[in-house]
Amino acid sequence: MQGLMMDYQLTVDRILEHANRFFAHKQVITKQPDGSIHRYTYGDMYRRVKRMAKALVQLGVQPGDRIGTFSWNNYQHLELYYAIPGAGAVCHTLNIRLHPDQLAYIINHAEDKLIFVDGTLLPALERLADQLPTVEHVVVFNAPREVQSKLPGLLHYEDLVAQSDEDFTWRCTDERQASVLCYTSGTTGNPKGVLYDHRALFLHAYGECQANALGLCELDTVLPVVPQFHVMAWGLPFGCPMAGANMVMPGPHLNPAALAQLIEDERVTVAAGVPSIWNGLYQELRSKPRDISCIRALVVGGSAMPRGLIEAYERDLHVNVMHAWGMTEMSPLGTVSIPHTQHQQLSQQEIWDIKALQGYALAGVELRIVNDAGEELPWDGTTMGELQVRGPWITKGYYKVEPAPESFTADGWFRTGDVATITGDGYMCITDRTKDLIKSGGEWISSVALENKLMAHPKVVEAAVIAIPNQQWGERPLAAVVLAPNASANEEELIGYLAESFAKFELPDKIVFVAEVPKTSVGKFDKKVVRQRFAEGQLL
Amino acid sequence: MQGLMMDYQLTVDRILEHANRFFAHKQVITKQPDGSIHRYTYGDMYRRVKRMAKALVQLGVQPGDRIGTFSWNNYQHLELYYAIPGAGAVCHTLNIRLHPDQLAYIINHAEDKLIFVDGTLLPALERLADQLPTVEHVVVFNAPREVQSKLPGLLHYEDLVAQSDEDFTWRCTDERQASVLCYTSGTTGNPKGVLYDHRALFLHAYGECQANALGLCELDTVLPVVPQFHVMAWGLPFGCPMAGANMVMPGPHLNPAALAQLIEDERVTVAAGVPSIWNGLYQELRSKPRDISCIRALVVGGSAMPRGLIEAYERDLHVNVMHAWGMTEMSPLGTVSIPHTQHQQLSQQEIWDIKALQGYALAGVELRIVNDAGEELPWDGTTMGELQVRGPWITKGYYKVEPAPESFTADGWFRTGDVATITGDGYMCITDRTKDLIKSGGEWISSVALENKLMAHPKVVEAAVIAIPNQQWGERPLAAVVLAPNASANEEELIGYLAESFAKFELPDKIVFVAEVPKTSVGKFDKKVVRQRFAEGQLL
Repeated sequence: MQGLMMDYQLTVDRILEHANRFFAHKQVITKQPDGSIHRYTYGDMYRRVKRMAKALVQLGVQPGDRIGTFSWNNYQHLELYYAIPGAGAVCHTLNIRLHPDQLAYIINHAEDKLIFVDGTLLPALERLADQLPTVEHVVVFNAPREVQSKLPGLLHYEDLVAQSDEDFTWRCTDERQASVLCYTSGTTGNPKGVLYDHRALFLHAYGECQANALGLCELDTVLPVVPQFHVMAWGLPFGCPMAGANMVMPGPHLNPAALAQLIEDERVTVAAGVPSIWNGLYQELRSKPRDISCIRALVVGGSAMPRGLIEAYERDLHVNVMHAWGMTEMSPLGTVSIPHTQHQQLSQQEIWDIKALQGYALAGVELRIVNDAGEELPWDGTTMGELQVRGPWITKGYYKVEPAPESFTADGWFRTGDVATITGDGYMCITDRTKDLIKSGGEWISSVALENKLMAHPKVVEAAVIAIPNQQWGERPLAAVVLAPNASANEEELIGYLAESFAKFELPDKIVFVAEVPKTSVGKFDKKVVRQRFAEGQLL
Repeated sequence: MQGLMMDYQLTVDRILEHANRFFAHKQVITKQPDGSIHRYTYGDMYRRVKRMAKALVQLGVQPGDRIGTFSWNNYQHLELYYAIPGAGAVCHTLNIRLHPDQLAYIINHAEDKLIFVDGTLLPALERLADQLPTVEHVVVFNAPREVQSKLPGLLHYEDLVAQSDEDFTWRCTDERQASVLCYTSGTTGNPKGVLYDHRALFLHAYGECQANALGLCELDTVLPVVPQFHVMAWGLPFGCPMAGANMVMPGPHLNPAALAQLIEDERVTVAAGVPSIWNGLYQELRSKPRDISCIRALVVGGSAMPRGLIEAYERDLHVNVMHAWGMTEMSPLGTVSIPHTQHQQLSQQEIWDIKALQGYALAGVELRIVNDAGEELPWDGTTMGELQVRGPWITKGYYKVEPAPESFTADGWFRTGDVATITGDGYMCITDRTKDLIKSGGEWISSVALENKLMAHPKVVEAAVIAIPNQQWGERPLAAVVLAPNASANEEELIGYLAESFAKFELPDKIVFVAEVPKTSVGKFDKKVVRQRFAEGQLL
């Protein structure tokens, strides 16, 4: 028997309607390319989104068409997050840091019909001008009206807004309709597209606003440093209008001094970014203190925040760090690590240990760890298994790719590619990527655990541990280490340091000192390149 | 184009699975009929729910079968909220305060197959023993194993649990499947059944856990004084396990002293109930103070909390009052009135004015006010219109009743029957019921506004204002007033008092003094009875 509840669709236009009804006066603050501040309200934004959505339809955009965006975080990009899905099309966020070949690949794979581009990034896109057969128009903003380009059918964003009007009915009528497309950066093979539906984005925003998660509310002012081209700035462009929180968009100004100034000036309460950004901000704030007492949560994800940096923020700057974990395939948020009632009696050091974990699942996300045979493993805090997830905002397949068993289990769970432990009370800890795990003489060695320990050493800035082939043991660990400026250390010293915490068989066979660890376009250690360099003999 | 997200169903079993995974150690505390405290964990509850769900299937319960519950708030009733929908059936919560004829009517209208009954309420149900043709079994708890009854097929709850086991797969596979059935108390005609689906309850729980709403989180300990038989205790039995909050169930012990003791002993952070309960608690705490500093929100709904009582709680007891509004047809939560950023500069008196409003909508609920022609009215804080709502947890029709235009608009909104104003920043205020509104000489007069003002008078305890026929004006207001013990006042004095705040045409033609205002089974003023008494000449 079916219930008798309204058939109300969870579409992203509802989020904007809610913001316009209840938070029309709340602000979106953008630091523009020239450093000036642009400030307007959700009410202003609502009217411009309606105009842009109507303009898209007038340009001939059809339901399901893919429309690219190539931009920093700013109010125009935010408008496009609603105008494109609101017009029934799919907003394809293009990673501005991709190699031109990869960028051309994803535009052509998605068959983007239009691309919106931040004027400051026009030169980067122009390099692909003759490789974009599906693109009919490029629409530019943050550029003078008279801007010229060899890109096809150049239009100006503000002309489209000015020539349109607000009399528009949203074209998203089904919550399972596609809304946003985002390609994973993928360290192997071609990037793969994750195609979100409206329902996923609505529910993910709902999830973020839970008091147990980010707890976004009307009193917040949120700074998404994490780019809009990287998993939709972690969904904050949907969570903030839903909660009525002000948004602060940093544009291209991601240097630590600019961020520190924005936080202080705009009284930011929640800031979200990757560890490398917060590492830079920490150094900046130590050398030039500012009043950042406004921050209630420094949200960190994308890769694990070193425990030392969590401690440093809390101890030296009195900033509460909130560790989160997710993936492009998860819209992206899966877990947060907030201490709970059972931790209230712990010491400060132990609390930081908890905060360094990836944490418990948001309501709506299910986690499990399994062994190679696919059997579920116990949550005891020590047993390592492949992490699998399930939920309404998790992908069931990549765009135009047949679902493969390497990504999905037969019973419908997504295989994250991470190896994790989970404590009895549900705190998950990523110990490795399945492909980075070192299998030595039948035992598993966590490359991440070795890296974290090495990076906690005062002389070490970065460390990447990879498996190298070994005739006797199958695989053995090798560590590539970047020393702090002016620091010196030798292999013996660091091995001795690791021996304090690890079993003998877990210690790296070799430590090599390098100038930097190669990174992916989103700033993660690119171990594929490290392995390749090793194979080419560069690390011997 | 459809998105590529998992087809993950939002069913209530997922809430319990989440609680069992992440909050298995958190507690459900019940004050039992004999006054002793029963204490167990969500982990314990999970295992007993699995057993009970399996027992139901073994008893022959089929998908969609209606199963009644006739109980106070306690752990067994909480188990049934999951076991019945988890077995694929529909949990029909029976209002224990209904007149026997109405109770028989709803059991027979729903065709309940089983009824679960709290032993302390067995005599009340036994009065209907020969009027329940569809009921095959009555299952009793809070009663000795050897209890006897003339009710059909008596079983004992604990026998079912003991004879079953935990090896059970939930039978809710579709979020649109019916889960709970609750009849509105209805002051006119027969009660009407609201049939919730799983999706509505899941999303409503999500809505409650938003930081902008109740903000339920793992640190909370929640006391639902509002009964489980009254719109599912406002959804708290779903919101609390989702958030990992402890629950405190008062059983039949709803007297002020018992509630005050529970709050102090269990360190309750959120308590939810109707104004009359909180009025009693206030008197109790004034005469015998207790440490209730643990409370972060005293949630009040069901009917409007008088502003004076809000002020009294905050001023005298330093308790934060959170006003909420909803309806059985809305699962029930629609709005909460929490002051926002724009109120930060207001005086304390003005803040209490805000808190006395019904407030802004939860994300997911849409509000509008319309005139008699169905045209939408402006949100200006003064224009009154019929309040209509829409959302995923709002009913689209009553059980086995054809949807009628008096309840639903042609474009799919639910007509609440309330008259309201909404401020420019979205704070809604119920000014009347459509059927209680007084239409005098073409002008509308709010009976609720007159009542609130009268009840703010120190000598007045209760006031009900009704429309009485008038040849010249169509209708005119009449007020039935209950004076405080030992207070005396005359009509002239109260009319003079009202004249300070109301226009001359709004003042009641007559004030009559009565011993009490008749109330419905859920404690609301029953104006139908007041009007009837007037018609019979009792109020002249």
